[in-house]
Amino acid sequence: MNIVLLPKNTPVQPILSITECRQIQHIQHQLKLGVGDTLKVGIRDGERYLTEIIALHAHAIDVKILKTENIPSKRAVTLVLALPRPKVLRRIVMDAVTLGVEELILIHSYRVDKSYWQSPLLAQIEDYITLGLEQAGDTIAPQVTLYKRFKPFVEDILSAMVQPRRPVYVAHPYVNTTQHHMVEPCCLVIGPEGGFIAYEIELFKTNGCQTVSLGNRILRTETAIPYILGALSI
Amino acid sequence: MNIVLLPKNTPVQPILSITECRQIQHIQHQLKLGVGDTLKVGIRDGERYLTEIIALHAHAIDVKILKTENIPSKRAVTLVLALPRPKVLRRIVMDAVTLGVEELILIHSYRVDKSYWQSPLLAQIEDYITLGLEQAGDTIAPQVTLYKRFKPFVEDILSAMVQPRRPVYVAHPYVNTTQHHMVEPCCLVIGPEGGFIAYEIELFKTNGCQTVSLGNRILRTETAIPYILGALSI
Repeated sequence: MNIVLLPKNTPVQPILSITECRQIQHIQHQLKLGVGDTLKVGIRDGERYLTEIIALHAHAIDVKILKTENIPSKRAVTLVLALPRPKVLRRIVMDAVTLGVEELILIHSYRVDKSYWQSPLLAQIEDYITLGLEQAGDTIAPQVTLYKRFKPFVEDILSAMVQPRRPVYVAHPYVNTTQHHMVEPCCLVIGPEGGFIAYEIELFKTNGCQTVSLGNRILRTETAIPYILGALSI
Repeated sequence: MNIVLLPKNTPVQPILSITECRQIQHIQHQLKLGVGDTLKVGIRDGERYLTEIIALHAHAIDVKILKTENIPSKRAVTLVLALPRPKVLRRIVMDAVTLGVEELILIHSYRVDKSYWQSPLLAQIEDYITLGLEQAGDTIAPQVTLYKRFKPFVEDILSAMVQPRRPVYVAHPYVNTTQHHMVEPCCLVIGPEGGFIAYEIELFKTNGCQTVSLGNRILRTETAIPYILGALSI
């Protein structure tokens, strides 16, 4: 946690109160901070501040705003992911948010187990976004959208995202193109475990997407996301 | 698992037997393969083959070698990591191996909890390497070394790694240099949660290392590793 995020629409006052148990415990037991220490505090979808801790109560920590700080800029990247296994959903959403994608879209595809869409963890995506923002020191949540139907998504939504200066890349382990030509801004599509099937790859291509390979090593989705965003950053 | 790795020094014969329970279960229940299907099989630190399944026994799967395949090339990168929390050690070692670093060094530093060195999970690093190789489709394990003393490591080992055409980069969130100038081959040093302390950064610098920033977003170690290797890949 590199910033403490207060809920959206928290009124901005010279003194702010942190009341969430998870955050209080982190400040006291992990960061081991006390009165007089500085702390970065932000308001979800609002400003980010450098503050000073002025009081520790049983169920609240009061901080005084010292100054407003810059929010890290977002990456001009829309990340489209085949819905991951529930077990890795938290980590993947958190990482995508930490890395600063401006939009995250979760889609169905042939090799996504249908049961994943019933997972109770899907209801926790908002919490995962908060964790990702707190790691990055960011306050602005990316837009997150879910599409349960593959073909309409590709034909109606994704095809409209293809622009001359904003390509749509589909990461696919079994093509010869490498990532050397990738540019930002862009839209990145990453498949499920086992990859997209041939029919899906064809549909992407006929709708204006470019397939790219990440090299001759097959990466897990959770590894591929930071890898490809690192490659795009130059 | 994109390749099934047999133990080091397994004799190469036209018919090979897979006898490890984890691998048999993965082939039968995840990959759902049977007699006649092809399977990539490698020998740890040896060759990689395309094979065909010829028999399924209760505790073994027999495969016939069809042809020898290319092993993915390694990255000319030595990765030096402050020993991670035991909870993320598996994932970090696995990812570093999957991404193809040719050498992995785990070191102590001020913010590494001393208890981490007592973790029973350290004894499982060999297994984590196997998992990383199986993910990547690789057979050759990187060299892995552990150094429990920070100062002698930096002064005696790391300083000797600095070469004109093979820089040593220390990733550090609080410097202004960005990763734009990074080149491969190189040695990458990544700190613990909370980063290296000022004394450690100074010691790195006086021993010829360059500090680099990964941008204005603070990444977890497990996210920083693929991110920086992606950035280096261009």
